[in-house]
Amino acid sequence: MTFQEKLNAAWAKSRSLVCVGLDPEKKRLPERLFNRPDAIFAFNKAIIDATHDIVCAYKPQFAHYAAIAAEDQLAATIDYIHDRYPHVPVILDAKRGDVGSTAEFYAAEAFERYRADAVTVNPYLGGDSIAPFTKYADKGVILLCRTSNAGGADLQEQMIDGEPLYMRVAKLAANEWNGNNNISLVVGATVPQVIADVRRVVGDMPLLVPGVGAQGGDMKATVAVGRDSNGTGLIINASRSVIYASGGDDFAHAARGVVEQMIEDGAMP
Amino acid sequence: MTFQEKLNAAWAKSRSLVCVGLDPEKKRLPERLFNRPDAIFAFNKAIIDATHDIVCAYKPQFAHYAAIAAEDQLAATIDYIHDRYPHVPVILDAKRGDVGSTAEFYAAEAFERYRADAVTVNPYLGGDSIAPFTKYADKGVILLCRTSNAGGADLQEQMIDGEPLYMRVAKLAANEWNGNNNISLVVGATVPQVIADVRRVVGDMPLLVPGVGAQGGDMKATVAVGRDSNGTGLIINASRSVIYASGGDDFAHAARGVVEQMIEDGAMP
Repeated sequence: MTFQEKLNAAWAKSRSLVCVGLDPEKKRLPERLFNRPDAIFAFNKAIIDATHDIVCAYKPQFAHYAAIAAEDQLAATIDYIHDRYPHVPVILDAKRGDVGSTAEFYAAEAFERYRADAVTVNPYLGGDSIAPFTKYADKGVILLCRTSNAGGADLQEQMIDGEPLYMRVAKLAANEWNGNNNISLVVGATVPQVIADVRRVVGDMPLLVPGVGAQGGDMKATVAVGRDSNGTGLIINASRSVIYASGGDDFAHAARGVVEQMIEDGAMP
Repeated sequence: MTFQEKLNAAWAKSRSLVCVGLDPEKKRLPERLFNRPDAIFAFNKAIIDATHDIVCAYKPQFAHYAAIAAEDQLAATIDYIHDRYPHVPVILDAKRGDVGSTAEFYAAEAFERYRADAVTVNPYLGGDSIAPFTKYADKGVILLCRTSNAGGADLQEQMIDGEPLYMRVAKLAANEWNGNNNISLVVGATVPQVIADVRRVVGDMPLLVPGVGAQGGDMKATVAVGRDSNGTGLIINASRSVIYASGGDDFAHAARGVVEQMIEDGAMP
């Protein structure tokens, strides 16, 4: 099963466009978990058990594990999702990007070591830096296009022949770079028109959308302009607003409540 | 001591502009090391012991360790350099890049967990993604500007107001983004004119230059156009051509021979 097929099935089964970002910070964990050696995995496991039927994907963010040498808990989290909830795709948010043989090692890290279904990749180094990832034809490669931070404009909004750089990335991603038809794009939700512009040139390509809610993106506007021709096509990510919805022992229940609210607000096929 | 001061001292002491990239591949290690559990560290250690007096920096490349879960050997390598040869700066080549709080975790990974003196960072996400790295004022932040791969042209050579994107990056790196004066740039050696153009707008900023030799860059032309006003300013990296100079037990001696040849070819202040 390819990433795209797995994602299609997850949208259909969950009736949800919500992706939960697993970005655990040790110091923000509930007190009862804090001193366990596997605190991060235990935290993730509780969130996953409470939300698996109402999400279309999980997205662990690499730096949160790497900064504290918790690669084992990242691997355990991904293994747990594959073993218990094999219908939910796992996106490793690592924003990799390097040349030639080095990119092959990064692809091996994401797809072989961590067994992710998809990985986020930075396009600045161009097509030959992306090919070592896309050659894993059953995996997803999610390129940064227009990120949701203010500084994203510094380069991504620079105009090239009358269009911003991120539109150039969207077109390359939909055409020259997409020989295996397994590229997706990251497009922030802060400006709905950006999502609409990207959707216009990429057909039914999945879009990973951060920035709804916490960063000010509007759910209804995002879904209205971002859906593909099947009414799906969106992976709407929320991380901290979900996993830290409560700082107490009810954190997993509270996380489910936030995901349910996002669906009610419009994050559904 | 800041990264820049350490680098200045290393250039002066070694009389060399050569940086050795520590990109070990398990399957290319000499037979006598292959079956040791610490094979990669043992390999790096031999290379470092054989070259420490004729290099200005070492640059371990993250993916080579991460793909095979060898973070411990990456950490051991960096610790070894700091302990034995504290005058040689260590550049962690990880090409990180993410937004806000996540970038803070990546900076913590590079500077606190691995104790690198500098880290490579991808500029596609803009100024606010770079600030969490540059705020470590004594550390170096080496931004990708014009990479040495052919695909680098896909985005980096796109013209913005009459100049390529990489020149926009060079100017931002030298000005708006450089409040702590600790940014350097990656500029490939394949086209000397590119190095000359970047040098013209960045003053005496250090340039990390891959692509001499193996990728066709000319040493004399690179040094002639790339030197700063002090006759230094260049970190000329070679990885595989040095560390795999011999596949036999004389690999470390052979590595030293390649570095000496690079210096003889012009890689000196």
